[in-house]
Amino acid sequence: MEADTKKQDGLTKVAVDAMGGDNAPAAVVKGAVEAVSSRSDIKVFLVGQTDAIQKELDRYQYPGAQIEIVEAPEVIEMAEPPVQAVRKKKQSSIVIGMNMVKQKEADAFVSAGSSGAVLVGGQTIVGRIKGIKRAPLAPMIPTETGVSLLIDCGANVDARAEHLLQFAQMGSIYMENVVGIKNPRVAIVNIGAEEEKGNALVKETFPLLSACKEINFVGSIEAREIPRGGADVIVCEAFVGNVILKLYEGLSSTLVGVIKQAMLSTLKSKIGAFLALPALKSRLKTFDASEYGGAPLLGLNGLVVKSHGSSSEKEITNSIYQCVTFRKENIGEIFKEKIADSGKSKEE
Amino acid sequence: MEADTKKQDGLTKVAVDAMGGDNAPAAVVKGAVEAVSSRSDIKVFLVGQTDAIQKELDRYQYPGAQIEIVEAPEVIEMAEPPVQAVRKKKQSSIVIGMNMVKQKEADAFVSAGSSGAVLVGGQTIVGRIKGIKRAPLAPMIPTETGVSLLIDCGANVDARAEHLLQFAQMGSIYMENVVGIKNPRVAIVNIGAEEEKGNALVKETFPLLSACKEINFVGSIEAREIPRGGADVIVCEAFVGNVILKLYEGLSSTLVGVIKQAMLSTLKSKIGAFLALPALKSRLKTFDASEYGGAPLLGLNGLVVKSHGSSSEKEITNSIYQCVTFRKENIGEIFKEKIADSGKSKEE
Repeated sequence: MEADTKKQDGLTKVAVDAMGGDNAPAAVVKGAVEAVSSRSDIKVFLVGQTDAIQKELDRYQYPGAQIEIVEAPEVIEMAEPPVQAVRKKKQSSIVIGMNMVKQKEADAFVSAGSSGAVLVGGQTIVGRIKGIKRAPLAPMIPTETGVSLLIDCGANVDARAEHLLQFAQMGSIYMENVVGIKNPRVAIVNIGAEEEKGNALVKETFPLLSACKEINFVGSIEAREIPRGGADVIVCEAFVGNVILKLYEGLSSTLVGVIKQAMLSTLKSKIGAFLALPALKSRLKTFDASEYGGAPLLGLNGLVVKSHGSSSEKEITNSIYQCVTFRKENIGEIFKEKIADSGKSKEE
Repeated sequence: MEADTKKQDGLTKVAVDAMGGDNAPAAVVKGAVEAVSSRSDIKVFLVGQTDAIQKELDRYQYPGAQIEIVEAPEVIEMAEPPVQAVRKKKQSSIVIGMNMVKQKEADAFVSAGSSGAVLVGGQTIVGRIKGIKRAPLAPMIPTETGVSLLIDCGANVDARAEHLLQFAQMGSIYMENVVGIKNPRVAIVNIGAEEEKGNALVKETFPLLSACKEINFVGSIEAREIPRGGADVIVCEAFVGNVILKLYEGLSSTLVGVIKQAMLSTLKSKIGAFLALPALKSRLKTFDASEYGGAPLLGLNGLVVKSHGSSSEKEITNSIYQCVTFRKENIGEIFKEKIADSGKSKEE
């Protein structure tokens, strides 16, 4: 899939929610400093409470012109009902950051804050590209062989087949151009490998994906094959995607916990654990998708990236880089040309 | 939840598919021999090709009156389309075993063979209890703290709220009376803990579960909490259940593989692995639901148990014990009284 659209040079402007996530503002500020210190083509707007941000910034040396604080006195808490929060807290870091993207003052917005508020803000403030019917949240999940894009894990449950088709197209373009996987294999989550299996939604979507020439559709994928890297773009509706994502996180952490516990249970196993730990840690690191940044919310007029609530500075830095690639590769324009406009012409 | 129905004494008759599963007939025969050797209240019918079964039986000493071979010359292969296979192969071990349950010649049927054929045969040959709208497949999944029942993982996709209510009731009765968990916590799989979240099906089911006085409904469960043992009975429709089950299996085996690989990667880690292995193995064993037997297909006129295709003799033995408890506790009658009949009286 080659883009007709030109690559974008120059500065990428990223608004970053300095107040979002468990480790904010410290980890966020550090991640931003790291990003601008490594690359001169990035400008970061740290959105949040000026004093708290400045205090963190004072710890570092960095190219001053590349970081700017944007005051946002309010903070949306994790537990707040997202729709009301976005509506009422106009002075929150999430709402102000999203508005910067809307006003084209920033190309992208990164937040490790409330998922719900980021999803709501993305849809209502930044807004969808005309012709894109839904904006899916597409986190990366680690696999035995690398990483896959799981699309959709957002809040738009009860999707229709036409939505899933667009998810597949956007996911494919994203994996190819941002993550750099050539001709990514696209599969739909199903309860068997055969075409006749599945629920009503999958049965309706399958032929649409088969007929779509712009993607490398490889058919159904059973959930068992996902951790083995069975496909690069895993298409499903948001309820199923959310279950996969959460179970992935929960089961990984439970299993690693169980194994740690076992290895500390006897003196002999403790010594064994001590010897095996370095190799184990380095291997498990590759089983960690935060290397690739946060989850993009695709199909909007600008990029919104949702980082994990527990984001480290490294994930923030990687999320900022992700925004740079997204803009340089002109993904928004590709979405418009290849998906939104082509869909429109068919409708007419 | 107390059963009004009397407990059943005497012999439990279990038909076992001697030809089903990767290790058949050897593991199946060995598992059956183990069951009848340990308990005198079981009679096993080994259904399959007499010569192959007899050859395996000849290896063991066992109480002869407790095992009987039932000839079934045909075998349904794993890859066969289930509906046609069940219709055409009338002389297969699965069809003959199911018919024994239907004719009350056996109380239960255990198979490690084709899941599809077991599901189809259960519904079409054994048949549902009158008033039970769907027969869910309910495997056990291991958790940090024990085991949970995941209901439904069967082939009945696109379930309705009234079906999920019956699943919750059957699952609760099963966990309490067969697995022995008092007042089991019942939860519905959802994408958030709040009642207002979820897709249309969950939103419709939630109030039905809340209103059902016969179960200990604890609300929504996010997939992340399942491996932590967040509920004893995990209710969901079959598509989601299948995704959870398959991802559970796939991710566990991938992670354990990754960890093994890491531990064998350096000399130091190899020595560590050698020292830690016994403790690790014994802890991971508890993370293995086959201790509890196979997955019951509930709501039928008799019990059908689907064991893993890779069932060891131990899982077969445990599946047979499971059938004994099911009959002794008179679960079928409890289903009739508490669910099927109560539903009927409401309808009238």
